[in-house]
Amino acid sequence: MTNVIANPDVTRYQQPLCSCPTAATDPALEALVREIIGRVADKWTMIVLEVLAEHGALRFSQLGERIAGVSQKMLTKTLRQMEADGLVLRTVFPVIPPRVEYVLTDLGQSLGAAFCGVWIWAEQNRQSIMTARAAFRAREAAD
Amino acid sequence: MTNVIANPDVTRYQQPLCSCPTAATDPALEALVREIIGRVADKWTMIVLEVLAEHGALRFSQLGERIAGVSQKMLTKTLRQMEADGLVLRTVFPVIPPRVEYVLTDLGQSLGAAFCGVWIWAEQNRQSIMTARAAFRAREAAD
Repeated sequence: MTNVIANPDVTRYQQPLCSCPTAATDPALEALVREIIGRVADKWTMIVLEVLAEHGALRFSQLGERIAGVSQKMLTKTLRQMEADGLVLRTVFPVIPPRVEYVLTDLGQSLGAAFCGVWIWAEQNRQSIMTARAAFRAREAAD
Repeated sequence: MTNVIANPDVTRYQQPLCSCPTAATDPALEALVREIIGRVADKWTMIVLEVLAEHGALRFSQLGERIAGVSQKMLTKTLRQMEADGLVLRTVFPVIPPRVEYVLTDLGQSLGAAFCGVWIWAEQNRQSIMTARAAFRAREAAD
């Protein structure tokens, strides 16, 4: 399950990952940025961003159809948090019955673009992840 | 709580956020990429990536001290998932008592770099998010 000696593939003493100004600044700012990350670094948020970016305005039921595995309750919660944070705009059209649509704001669009690197990473590294998982299961089984 | 007419700040018909190849490819691949995103797009994973990138190898207790608000159980679960996915290497040094250290693998390092854009986004847009939250609370109170 574990490695007893250091793995030469690993760089042991590393630099900050990026020039994120957060690391160097004051703790209150870092706490705020972590709180925001805690809200937005969430798989349902990421998937809603992707689906709305691709399809434009969608109703709740249309979103649900395009997001496999999400419960109605979780989708409601995700959209409400995204609305509160200014990432999506919820528009009620005054027709009977009322039509409610969700669309990304400019802020939501910019967050989606920021997550782009993570989607590309997942696609490019899926084989490495599958290999790592298989190796981990083999180590577990051997223990 | 909601907007009754369309907001002119919003581009209603949008393009995919990025040239992520996922959107255009087959459903099985997209499902796999979403599953990977579901594992890694998680606030504790993101924060562990940041802390290990900044500090290099750390013991469990040192990680816990640097991650405000994480429970021991959640940190254990996060590190175990990250180990299974090949993002961190867990090394047991054969001393008494055993010393266990966590360090990012090259794959973990690359994921941290991919998340960099999201950290920068959170820092750059924190004021917009705070403003959106205040406006949302005001709308809630008015309803």
